[in-house]
Amino acid sequence: MPNDKSFHMPSKDFKRYGYQIIDWIADYHERVEQMPVFSQVSPGEIYSKLPDHAPQQGDSFQEILKDIEKIIMPGITHWQSPNWYAFFPANTSGPSILGELLSAGLGVQGMLWATSPSCTELETRVVDWLVEMLDLPSTFKSDNTGGGVIQDSASSATLCALLAARERITGYSSNQTGCTGRLVAYASTQAHSSIEKAVKIAGIGSENLHSIGVDDQFAMLPDQLEQQVLKDKQHGLTPFFISANIGSTSSNALDPVAEIGEICRKHKMWLHVDAAMSGTAALCPEFRFIHRGLECADSYCFNPHKWMFTNFDCDVFYVKNRDALIRTFSLLPEYLRNKASESGEVFDYRDWHIQLGRRFRALKLWFVIRHYGIRGLQYHIREHVRLAQLFADWIRRSDDFTLEVEPPLNLVCFRHRGGDEINQYIMDTVNAGGKACFTHTRLNDHLVLRLSVGQTHTRENHVETVWQLIQQASRQYTSNGK
Amino acid sequence: MPNDKSFHMPSKDFKRYGYQIIDWIADYHERVEQMPVFSQVSPGEIYSKLPDHAPQQGDSFQEILKDIEKIIMPGITHWQSPNWYAFFPANTSGPSILGELLSAGLGVQGMLWATSPSCTELETRVVDWLVEMLDLPSTFKSDNTGGGVIQDSASSATLCALLAARERITGYSSNQTGCTGRLVAYASTQAHSSIEKAVKIAGIGSENLHSIGVDDQFAMLPDQLEQQVLKDKQHGLTPFFISANIGSTSSNALDPVAEIGEICRKHKMWLHVDAAMSGTAALCPEFRFIHRGLECADSYCFNPHKWMFTNFDCDVFYVKNRDALIRTFSLLPEYLRNKASESGEVFDYRDWHIQLGRRFRALKLWFVIRHYGIRGLQYHIREHVRLAQLFADWIRRSDDFTLEVEPPLNLVCFRHRGGDEINQYIMDTVNAGGKACFTHTRLNDHLVLRLSVGQTHTRENHVETVWQLIQQASRQYTSNGK
Repeated sequence: MPNDKSFHMPSKDFKRYGYQIIDWIADYHERVEQMPVFSQVSPGEIYSKLPDHAPQQGDSFQEILKDIEKIIMPGITHWQSPNWYAFFPANTSGPSILGELLSAGLGVQGMLWATSPSCTELETRVVDWLVEMLDLPSTFKSDNTGGGVIQDSASSATLCALLAARERITGYSSNQTGCTGRLVAYASTQAHSSIEKAVKIAGIGSENLHSIGVDDQFAMLPDQLEQQVLKDKQHGLTPFFISANIGSTSSNALDPVAEIGEICRKHKMWLHVDAAMSGTAALCPEFRFIHRGLECADSYCFNPHKWMFTNFDCDVFYVKNRDALIRTFSLLPEYLRNKASESGEVFDYRDWHIQLGRRFRALKLWFVIRHYGIRGLQYHIREHVRLAQLFADWIRRSDDFTLEVEPPLNLVCFRHRGGDEINQYIMDTVNAGGKACFTHTRLNDHLVLRLSVGQTHTRENHVETVWQLIQQASRQYTSNGK
Repeated sequence: MPNDKSFHMPSKDFKRYGYQIIDWIADYHERVEQMPVFSQVSPGEIYSKLPDHAPQQGDSFQEILKDIEKIIMPGITHWQSPNWYAFFPANTSGPSILGELLSAGLGVQGMLWATSPSCTELETRVVDWLVEMLDLPSTFKSDNTGGGVIQDSASSATLCALLAARERITGYSSNQTGCTGRLVAYASTQAHSSIEKAVKIAGIGSENLHSIGVDDQFAMLPDQLEQQVLKDKQHGLTPFFISANIGSTSSNALDPVAEIGEICRKHKMWLHVDAAMSGTAALCPEFRFIHRGLECADSYCFNPHKWMFTNFDCDVFYVKNRDALIRTFSLLPEYLRNKASESGEVFDYRDWHIQLGRRFRALKLWFVIRHYGIRGLQYHIREHVRLAQLFADWIRRSDDFTLEVEPPLNLVCFRHRGGDEINQYIMDTVNAGGKACFTHTRLNDHLVLRLSVGQTHTRENHVETVWQLIQQASRQYTSNGK
């Protein structure tokens, strides 16, 4: 930082406080294991501790850092605790944090190739690497018809896929009125809420999202899909889009992509595959069965910000045919015209998503891949799956608990056989205790507990602990004569 | 970081490399002034320097840092150079970079209040502060009917506003088919391309975005707007949304919000006001004229990531009635249910935008406001406006150059009187020289040069330099006998 007066932070202060925050983060990741995982504050508590008005005069940075501990930390729910089994992992790592720091320090905009060529080209290179690393279809590579781009989240990726599908089926006529009136999209009953959100946003209408039933492992029934498509066509509707899950949020169900893909091909529908958490498993050859049939997909996404040690946000979104995406989003006002764009030799990633501006997110992903190497990443994915399977074995061997589904990877859905009340009690008790946390879903009309293993530093002793806590809470409930 | 073997970065390495990157950033901001502003690389140059395949074994972090200098830096276009006058500012500052670092270190998800109460409540507090700081309508505050939320970009904010407007006019019937067929949106001919992008995404259709003419300062003509609305109603269409600019991208035009608001009120249309760059000027009482009439707006956004020393992404989006927004986006799958959400006492910000996941972006904004204080921020905004006005004076006093519009704030639109060719030459020559950079637009069928003053460290000597460079290039063109 240039050392000028006038309120800016001088270089020496930036270094001093920068080191302090680096130390603080290193220390936080060491002590987070000891902290109550879910924040215990009440609504409004943090808000009311913050002053009513912004300061007229600047505060010292030392004061700000004190307030982090005093005001902010009590309201933090610790997603980076190795005792985190709730919702889904949002794991991170040292190299990722440093990549985010460098990206903030450079402060470049990657909206056009010209606004920082490295931002675009490193991204293209790293997402090309990932095609090989996960053994994805080669059509997703930039030297083929497709390509990948970093999006903020799978919700946005799904929306982009749906919009590209809508434009393809309507002949890129989104400048025309009411083109969306008779389009129908499909997803299983287990699809993530982002599918319905996307369908609403795109003006398709939720009633035109048709839910397809699932089998006993909550995977979509392709026969039912095909019947529904045929019925809809008979009613004069236009089936155009389907979103398949590789690892549903609720229970990690794996939709049969190959069979679904065949139906899409026959009926000329866009197949989007959402592998938000589970896609990362394909780093390991033994888990690549999850991607069977993926060559049928028009688009695909997975989130390194869930299970690949890269901090949020970092969703990687691929399309088989990049022209479909670019034609959907490209608009070129005069003030963005430039020679590189007009040469057609470069990607302008703003044409691959909703936003115009974009951060240099490829840096953190590059740091993670280079630091761990493929082998390091594989090691941790295997370890997480091993721990989840170990926990599943304990459940299998227990008299009181049962697995609701066979866990394919790192998410275990289980419940006490005693009904919803005891399961609710177990969850509330363990979570209130602060030593571990997990969340729930409903499957087969049961309240089902979800143990999602994926935090960077979760190891066998942590999983043993949460199992002890669950059993304790179970015994407590019983001995309380409830 | 817990010190375990198995590929993770040990705590001591994280500290060591963390300090190195902090030092590197401090140094970068000192030397960036000397670097060619626009990257000079050719398409594909960076991509080809990166290995074809991801490494099997992890690399040392020292190697990665070397490659930053060797491979990445030549492809960086330096948005943080004080010689940056292109497009718009995307300025940042020490406190903001440290806030982003801390946010990455904590690695929390703010999708629900419960997933980190501090992430939600600090955000609410800081955006409430900003209502006072910019003297915005009090209905935008969280203790009133409205509220603010941090979005990634003004493009997303505009889309959210448009969707909430669509849902309000159709009675929140986005689950129904073809509800969008006869809706019409409005914006001036100078509106940002994100408006058209949003209209396409929402299924309204570009042909239903009606462009309204502008006056000689490129501000929307309210009479023409009203005539168009009446005409559209006569044709059986439903006017429902208008986006007004406070500071258009091309030339910083200020639409007459009060007059437009009156038309919106009469015809029950949603008024969105986009003040992406210029909103920040309202930190200073003398520039608050830009917001005249804002009490009529249903929604409003401005970007601290443009001109308020907060690194991208950080757009602040306000609505007058938060229910309209929440009803548009809220979907509650079982796996996200929790007591706090059901109590109705908390904001779950995932219901305020498109994405589900969200970063802890309020931290960097809080750091910036606390570090600078209102006075520090005002000082720099005034200084940027003063420098732009100084440059405008030089243009006024020049025989060769002319102002295309009177600059209201920090963006100067000017051109050489000699026609498009010399202006193109001047821009290309200065940009190729690397000592400063600016971009262009078209106004009144002229190629017009834009000097956008807003980088954190731009001072009078930098503006003097770019003016010298422009005059030199102009003389060069003439003496080359072109």
